[in-house]
Amino acid sequence: MENQLVRREARTEGTIVHLKNGASFGGDVLAVCAGPCSIESREQIERTASAVAKQGANVLRGGAFKPRTSPYAFQGLGEEGLRMMREAAGCNGLAVVTEVLDVRDVELVSRYADILQIGTRNMQNFSLLREVGESGMPVLLKRGISATVNEWLMAAEYIALTGNQRIILCERGVRSFDSATRNLLDLAVIPLLATLTHLPVIVDPSHGTGIAALVEPMALAGVAAGADGLLVEVHPDPASAASDGPQSLTFEQFEHLMRVLPAVARAAGRGVPAATLAA
Amino acid sequence: MENQLVRREARTEGTIVHLKNGASFGGDVLAVCAGPCSIESREQIERTASAVAKQGANVLRGGAFKPRTSPYAFQGLGEEGLRMMREAAGCNGLAVVTEVLDVRDVELVSRYADILQIGTRNMQNFSLLREVGESGMPVLLKRGISATVNEWLMAAEYIALTGNQRIILCERGVRSFDSATRNLLDLAVIPLLATLTHLPVIVDPSHGTGIAALVEPMALAGVAAGADGLLVEVHPDPASAASDGPQSLTFEQFEHLMRVLPAVARAAGRGVPAATLAA
Amino acid sequence: MENQLVRREARTEGTIVHLKNGASFGGDVLAVCAGPCSIESREQIERTASAVAKQGANVLRGGAFKPRTSPYAFQGLGEEGLRMMREAAGCNGLAVVTEVLDVRDVELVSRYADILQIGTRNMQNFSLLREVGESGMPVLLKRGISATVNEWLMAAEYIALTGNQRIILCERGVRSFDSATRNLLDLAVIPLLATLTHLPVIVDPSHGTGIAALVEPMALAGVAAGADGLLVEVHPDPASAASDGPQSLTFEQFEHLMRVLPAVARAAGRGVPAATLAA
Amino acid sequence: MENQLVRREARTEGTIVHLKNGASFGGDVLAVCAGPCSIESREQIERTASAVAKQGANVLRGGAFKPRTSPYAFQGLGEEGLRMMREAAGCNGLAVVTEVLDVRDVELVSRYADILQIGTRNMQNFSLLREVGESGMPVLLKRGISATVNEWLMAAEYIALTGNQRIILCERGVRSFDSATRNLLDLAVIPLLATLTHLPVIVDPSHGTGIAALVEPMALAGVAAGADGLLVEVHPDPASAASDGPQSLTFEQFEHLMRVLPAVARAAGRGVPAATLAA
Repeated sequence: MENQLVRREARTEGTIVHLKNGASFGGDVLAVCAGPCSIESREQIERTASAVAKQGANVLRGGAFKPRTSPYAFQGLGEEGLRMMREAAGCNGLAVVTEVLDVRDVELVSRYADILQIGTRNMQNFSLLREVGESGMPVLLKRGISATVNEWLMAAEYIALTGNQRIILCERGVRSFDSATRNLLDLAVIPLLATLTHLPVIVDPSHGTGIAALVEPMALAGVAAGADGLLVEVHPDPASAASDGPQSLTFEQFEHLMRVLPAVARAAGRGVPAATLAA
Repeated sequence: MENQLVRREARTEGTIVHLKNGASFGGDVLAVCAGPCSIESREQIERTASAVAKQGANVLRGGAFKPRTSPYAFQGLGEEGLRMMREAAGCNGLAVVTEVLDVRDVELVSRYADILQIGTRNMQNFSLLREVGESGMPVLLKRGISATVNEWLMAAEYIALTGNQRIILCERGVRSFDSATRNLLDLAVIPLLATLTHLPVIVDPSHGTGIAALVEPMALAGVAAGADGLLVEVHPDPASAASDGPQSLTFEQFEHLMRVLPAVARAAGRGVPAATLAA
Repeated sequence: MENQLVRREARTEGTIVHLKNGASFGGDVLAVCAGPCSIESREQIERTASAVAKQGANVLRGGAFKPRTSPYAFQGLGEEGLRMMREAAGCNGLAVVTEVLDVRDVELVSRYADILQIGTRNMQNFSLLREVGESGMPVLLKRGISATVNEWLMAAEYIALTGNQRIILCERGVRSFDSATRNLLDLAVIPLLATLTHLPVIVDPSHGTGIAALVEPMALAGVAAGADGLLVEVHPDPASAASDGPQSLTFEQFEHLMRVLPAVARAAGRGVPAATLAA
Repeated sequence: MENQLVRREARTEGTIVHLKNGASFGGDVLAVCAGPCSIESREQIERTASAVAKQGANVLRGGAFKPRTSPYAFQGLGEEGLRMMREAAGCNGLAVVTEVLDVRDVELVSRYADILQIGTRNMQNFSLLREVGESGMPVLLKRGISATVNEWLMAAEYIALTGNQRIILCERGVRSFDSATRNLLDLAVIPLLATLTHLPVIVDPSHGTGIAALVEPMALAGVAAGADGLLVEVHPDPASAASDGPQSLTFEQFEHLMRVLPAVARAAGRGVPAATLAA
């Protein structure tokens, strides 16, 4: 009854998820996914895509369908947002990762995305796991808010059972008793997962801490621990963001992160993506 | 941005969810939901329905679509199971509560159930919340595995916003650091919720503890704390159950619970359902 | 290496801790310990002792040495407070339970107390456990803020190894991810401990919830779950209390609790202490 | 009522704790504390001291008074162990850090140690905090098993109030719901504490993970996150260790850690201690 397909022993080499734009998860070069929590406007996503691409990000993140605790909070721009994001990514050589919330939207989101994200609230939405698996698209599977490592790998197994093993695990912090940070970023799972599964693992220090000032040090720590990439929230003006402002980096903060990242990446035996020649 | 519709102040009186068979949640008489974790066979569900009805249960619980951590675990009998359950309930004057996992199954499950259950893994599956809300059916909303009370009420608000306020909250234990019990049953939410919402609240001591020997004392404790009802797993032969055996009561254990329940219920100002004249 | 002395199998019958004033923990009659968090003045402790004795409490609680998170918070009146408390208890037929923080104070506190309390922060202060054990006094051992049941029983074993088995366990809530309550009261440990140890177990719904309005329902729930007694904070004027005001009952609230308690106690097969004829 | 003395604003520069052997916490060069969980024999501590000194450790760790969950577990060699450790350290140019459990032992332990360690179980043993503060010795204050950052800083404030600010904070993991690791190492507190206090902070990846294979990556992650040093368990033969074997590094594993550490340290703007010329 254990996980069969995603466990370490099932493959001699680690899985590398390659994207069309050259980005990869699990290889020698880190994947750097950056962008806003929510797509808010054409201008916002274009400016962000251009800025992060120049600094070396190779995947654009951004939400068009937003899972929000409150039904009164901003729920995202839907397909219109996806279209904006796809264009902004294309102009800057970036791939697109974005969340899908509903089994009925998998086909729609797949038209615009390179990676389908399963958010923390849906880690055990087994219908959705099967559906994104069937799509054949790469899947970024975030850890549930208090999921054990075993539960997380079993969720990946649901996807893998469809025949799709292009799965990227993403540690994004677990629920904590201490409100000093938004979540408790559990970096030890990175080396632990390397012993348990052949799947690549990335780190989201934005949700993992909830505090912009902690994102850079925790991104570096994640890479030092062996992560295959980063998922970072970047916004042109965090103070006015529709969601997750306090944890979003400004362009300047992201630039700084990308400047200090190579030394730590090198120490961990990794390269960083080359900046694309953005418009 | 706070919850508007489900909060205490939104109604002068507590919401009572009435079912056709006379069971109600939130009134003077407790609701007692009992039955197996999974529907396994016609004989299993019929024997259980008959036994629990005789002892005073007024709602039959049982899963036909099972959310299982492992994809290799028993996933339920699907529609065939729903049909068996409906018949077994009907013969014994019981209403039916059963879980729905997928937005595409809401209509199907609604044909067989009196209450749609949202399981702990789907508490923030917002698409599903909206869909069960739209169905107009009563909804039993289990607390997420580490959901705060605020997040739980916000999930209820998603349902209420569809115009459907026939919502029953169900405390089923939260994730704990101590593996001595399966979950940590948080009974303080019962009186706390009474100050925060007009919705009825019931307790699931089976998942809340994971240990059959603790079910009766925690059921009594829940009623003493003010719960509007119970959700209890009962199985003809727990040792051979397809799921949740260790926390399932035998018929004899359930009978004992129903014998000691009235005194505590009375002390809490409540009655217990009268046993139906089962076939 | 398991606990040997405190485990269930080590004794055929449950341990009953008897006090000189007739109160007992583990017998047919509940122990009801009530009083302020901190002893603040002669008038405060006298008024409280008189009030709670009239309602049926049989043990006076109150802190003279206070373990406070902040060194700038009120640290207690020390020996002067103990003297006040002893007198107030004596005039009202009450026994005294009070916390000892330092191995060097065990002898001093023993002169004034009937039960030495080990607070949650000191559950694994092994020197202190040995010292209170050696004193031969009854010991009330609170559960550590995130102690497992096994760690808690092992702490009791440290005491028992000194030859002193007059140990009372006290569940007072564990650390939670949800700030809606101060702690998460884990009532399932009551029936669980009954299977694991012969020691009596009481419940502290005041620290367990941190909210006065939740104290009565959780006290009743604790008794319904099988607790051998209660530890409740009562203060003449909670709003002006030096510590723990929000969770302290007024005299009226305590009176109400003691009025509704007998019915639940009876349902659980217990009696409540008779009110003493207070001066 | 907030912490006054240890907070960031109370000093313009970060506190550096200097030891006589040249080691320092908070300066440009990392402190590397290594050694066994328990001192077990003269040979064991001498071999370990020699090995870790050669690789660049500058502080020897080891317990002579062991706080053990079970009273039946090995409790340490006491003063005899301290003497062995002091000699082993002296021969190898190492300073000594060791735990003190009892206020009555502070003077004794101070005769043999350069740093007094307050263990996780005693973080809120306020008498002990005051006593180690009064000793004037440097204090290594481990985080409580589920202490909030605020509680931890308040514990440091208790020490600082004695006039002794030679305090080193040590993150060692917090209690988790997932038994996949022994504790959950909370590295985000490192950059967070840098904004809240002027005190140095080190990381214990041994207790933080409980698994030897995770110690190196988490040590590197800690340094990348900005830690001022490491506390690592090293044992000549982990499989036969009296305590904490599964998380102890062999000499070879420690050597490997010290070989890869400089690159990450450099990326974080730090140096590593030079290896001493061990006898």
